[in-house]
Amino acid sequence: MVDTLTSNADATPEINTRLWSTLIRNLTPYTPGEQPKHDNLCKLNTNENPFPPSPKVAEAIAQVLLNQADHLKRYPAPESDELRAVMAQVYQVAPNQIFVGNGSDEVLAHIFACFFVKDRSVLTPDIGYSFYPVYADTFHVNLVTIALKADFSIDVDDYRRPCSGIIIANPNAPTGVLLPLADIEKLLQEHRNAVIVIDEAYIDFADTPNASAVSLIDKYDNLVVTQTFSKSRSLAGLRVGMAFANHSLIEALNRYKNSFNSYPLDRLAQAGAVASLQDNDYFVACNQKVIALRHDVTQALTQLGFTVLPSQANFVFAKPPASMGETIQVFEKLREQGVIVRHFNKPKISSYLRITIGTAEQNQRLLDTLTNLF
Amino acid sequence: MVDTLTSNADATPEINTRLWSTLIRNLTPYTPGEQPKHDNLCKLNTNENPFPPSPKVAEAIAQVLLNQADHLKRYPAPESDELRAVMAQVYQVAPNQIFVGNGSDEVLAHIFACFFVKDRSVLTPDIGYSFYPVYADTFHVNLVTIALKADFSIDVDDYRRPCSGIIIANPNAPTGVLLPLADIEKLLQEHRNAVIVIDEAYIDFADTPNASAVSLIDKYDNLVVTQTFSKSRSLAGLRVGMAFANHSLIEALNRYKNSFNSYPLDRLAQAGAVASLQDNDYFVACNQKVIALRHDVTQALTQLGFTVLPSQANFVFAKPPASMGETIQVFEKLREQGVIVRHFNKPKISSYLRITIGTAEQNQRLLDTLTNLF
Repeated sequence: MVDTLTSNADATPEINTRLWSTLIRNLTPYTPGEQPKHDNLCKLNTNENPFPPSPKVAEAIAQVLLNQADHLKRYPAPESDELRAVMAQVYQVAPNQIFVGNGSDEVLAHIFACFFVKDRSVLTPDIGYSFYPVYADTFHVNLVTIALKADFSIDVDDYRRPCSGIIIANPNAPTGVLLPLADIEKLLQEHRNAVIVIDEAYIDFADTPNASAVSLIDKYDNLVVTQTFSKSRSLAGLRVGMAFANHSLIEALNRYKNSFNSYPLDRLAQAGAVASLQDNDYFVACNQKVIALRHDVTQALTQLGFTVLPSQANFVFAKPPASMGETIQVFEKLREQGVIVRHFNKPKISSYLRITIGTAEQNQRLLDTLTNLF
Repeated sequence: MVDTLTSNADATPEINTRLWSTLIRNLTPYTPGEQPKHDNLCKLNTNENPFPPSPKVAEAIAQVLLNQADHLKRYPAPESDELRAVMAQVYQVAPNQIFVGNGSDEVLAHIFACFFVKDRSVLTPDIGYSFYPVYADTFHVNLVTIALKADFSIDVDDYRRPCSGIIIANPNAPTGVLLPLADIEKLLQEHRNAVIVIDEAYIDFADTPNASAVSLIDKYDNLVVTQTFSKSRSLAGLRVGMAFANHSLIEALNRYKNSFNSYPLDRLAQAGAVASLQDNDYFVACNQKVIALRHDVTQALTQLGFTVLPSQANFVFAKPPASMGETIQVFEKLREQGVIVRHFNKPKISSYLRITIGTAEQNQRLLDTLTNLF
């Protein structure tokens, strides 16, 4: 089975870099989690939601196709006006405090371009979303990593040094550990002239609904909070992400977008995202289910001898017991059985596995496979 | 009516640029043609196709929603493998000679980042797509403009000077004038160490089907040809564009994409684009209709005293007769009557109007309005 899973590799012809810019020669691109096209896989490697999106999403998109099919010939609303208006109501902010982009990855890229000044330091935890160092290279930003504490938590006192910005995933990736809002406020107060970016891709899976820093954007003009429809809204396939901030920071993002690509969200994505926001009951119910399943998986893995970090995301970061051997071998044995999780071959975290919370059936398959293997 | 058309302007709060990077402070974003949300408008200002996309597009998207709705929860294929495979067949190139992006605007932005070396010159006609100077600012490229000839054609001999790249829209925007393939080959031969970008957003509306430079990518490793689904495939609302080039240049674009945003095309856009490519009869028939309508409009405007440039695009660039007064006034009078065309208040072209080819009815309304007004 392993062979068919690594089938991305066509016979690659030789690459001639003669006409490449220096930037491209020096870039090391981000590697997304693999997306094998294999049936009967238990895919717990890319933190997608185990549940489908609200049925209202497909209905809204079908409505665009049915009633207004020829509208696909027209450019979409460049600033996603309707989507931002609905979002403003749901998140209780003003429309001009919202920027939307093609997934939060695109939004984060724009943030690096807009706020992180070349040759001045931007601080980030040494364990974090692995796209940040790539953005730093793309936009010539001097990213300085600050070590997490031994328990993988962040000590904000370690961030007391000159910088033009700070970027932190919260809950952190790939650990799932949450930084309390009080600590974020401390950073905001101590760095009034730096832009503090809180990347909340997983925030909707926190046990408490008050964990988000969006509530602070009126109080701090140096705060940017990013979120995404890819995880908690089950719409990774639709590419919608957003940033919340003071209108002056949002205006900078708009200027960059309009100097890069005016229409990053197509008509169907805008309609689907609006429908998702309008079905709040479904959204809340799904998140509750994922949270409950995370508690179950955490407990079961702990019983199998795993060390599981306290996760507030839709995944757990877990270290297999020594009796199972090297973590990379656990990863590979699971993979041979069709259970795909994620392993990062990096200092400090190579003994851990990042395991996405699946459906109850998927989680059981993971646990059964572990039990049978070891 | 004019008031309701310019309603983009909310009461804008004061902008504080304290936390903006120097790049953002200095950018002047691109201004897309207005998208008024008014009924009964004759919208001939953004070069959208007057005909809807192939009905197969909506069918294919509905199929994704119906059979695989929960697939929206999964990330799309990051490299749009199926779409590139189908495109390779249609355009008779290899899949690794194709890059796809979120509209050709995004593809062009990546091209600036990948190939146009900072501080070396990139040549472009002084009249061209007005996004090029914006990209140049975004990516710190020294864009040098070369004057068109008096008849708005390009003399490739004027491009005999050191440069790291050349970018030309062909047919040119907003003139519609076509540069023959023999002249493009001359540029490619004379600048073997520069990347030559031919932006073919409108090429499918050329009278001859052999006008495209895609046929040259095997012969010249320094050629990049961009195209889009927004115009000839009536899918501006879906955001799909592409570049054709030698695989080494495509690899550079992939590296940049994967250092910026791994998944720029959502699942529905990929499915819709595949369906559009597969309905070639519809595509050819639509283009033929637009070409025939362009000939009609050209003739009718000429009879009204306009000077109409020889267009190979889905628009005409036309100068009203002196008897109609200043061109800007013709533009405004048409607008008051609900006929929206585009006027560029720039040297050398401010006496012209860019008029998108509409349906027969829309074109007639334009002509009737002109006849009634003047």
